Order: sequence, then structure tokens, then C-alpha cells
Amino acid sequence: MMLKHSHEVPEEKPSLQGTKGCILRWLVAKKDGARHYAMRLFELQPGGLIPVHSHDETEHEIYIIDGTATFDDGKNKIVVNKNDALFVQPGDKHSFINNSDKPFKFICVIPL
Amino acid sequence: MMLKHSHEVPEEKPSLQGTKGCILRWLVAKKDGARHYAMRLFELQPGGLIPVHSHDETEHEIYIIDGTATFDDGKNKIVVNKNDALFVQPGDKHSFINNSDKPFKFICVIPL
Repeated sequence: MMLKHSHEVPEEKPSLQGTKGCILRWLVAKKDGARHYAMRLFELQPGGLIPVHSHDETEHEIYIIDGTATFDDGKNKIVVNKNDALFVQPGDKHSFINNSDKPFKFICVIPL
Repeated sequence: MMLKHSHEVPEEKPSLQGTKGCILRWLVAKKDGARHYAMRLFELQPGGLIPVHSHDETEHEIYIIDGTATFDDGKNKIVVNKNDALFVQPGDKHSFINNSDKPFKFICVIPL
């Protein structure tokens, strides 16, 4: 069994162009021995943005740990909150905007 | 995109024999269209127990949302806390005991 304290996991910047005020941490990754899927922790600062995008082959299973944000699918915007779960299927457009004054944190699991 | 408020997802009892004071919710499941892995939310009440067990083929990627518990691998016990991530590989023995006075909540992702 592997244990990681999330604040000790090195933070990285997402590669998606247009992303602002966002860091991620790979909590369980391929290098840890994960074979099928990886678990990442995202933190979006107040004013932060992950712009609308989609992935042809890749789904996201998301759980919101803390805070509130606007989710934008390119057509409609909804507010999402702590303790919400989201399932973004391959091809689904998705975006998060943190218009609040607190960090917005979520777990995002992707296939490997 | 599918959104679920976790408290609205029906709670179920884990099938593992010997489990006490524990419920789980399937946040993202096969019936939701998940193809590779499923996301569950577990809640272990004070005094609750998930006894030591292992799965030959199945890994767990776990993130602790709230609380503190004792993790037992059948040989050693460690304390795990909110914001810790755990990777339990196939064959790894694992158990949670909630000896605190608050609920212990975690996300557990398993392959489908």
C-alpha cells in the first residue's frame, strides 16, 4: 500500500493552454504502479480558469472536495459545489471558472 | 456530463462480511456509462470497521475527504487523515477502523 499526504506531492501546472490560477498533483500515477487509471488533485484559485475543452477518448470522474465554481459545457453554465460528483464522458466539453473568493479543489480520475 | 449531489445518491451497505457502521454510494457507476472504473463514496461512522481483506485482481485508489481512521494491512497499523491518498494494489490487505468521534469519509475508485 502506498500513502501520500497530498500537500507533499509536487504541484504541477496543467498543460492545457489558457488555464489560469490552477495547479494539479498526481496522487496515484503510472510511476506508482497504477495500471488502469490515475488520480489527480486540482486546485483552482479565486479568479482561476480551466477553459472549455474536450478529449476524444478520455473520460473524467470528478469529486469536488472544497469550494464552488461554474461548470461550462460550451453552451450552458451551472454552479457546482463541494460534495458534487461529475462524470465527463469522452467528447463532452468542459470548463471550470472559480468566481468565488476561496480555492476550488477537486479530484479528477482519468484512464491511463 | 452527469452531475450528482452525493447526499442524493442512494446509500448501500457494503457486502463484505464483518463490516460495521459503514455505507457507500456509487457516484459514477457502470449504469451511468462508466467503462473503465467506478467512483464510490464511503462513510464509516465512529466505531465503524471495514475488516482486513484483499482482492486478487482489483486495486483501489482512495482519497480521504474527511476525518481520521486507522488503516490496518494485517501486520501494521497506521493513522490516515483527511487529504491523504492511498493506493491499494491487487493482493494488498487493507482495513479501516474509525476510532474517532467523527465520521470518516473517503472516495474509492475501483476498476470495472
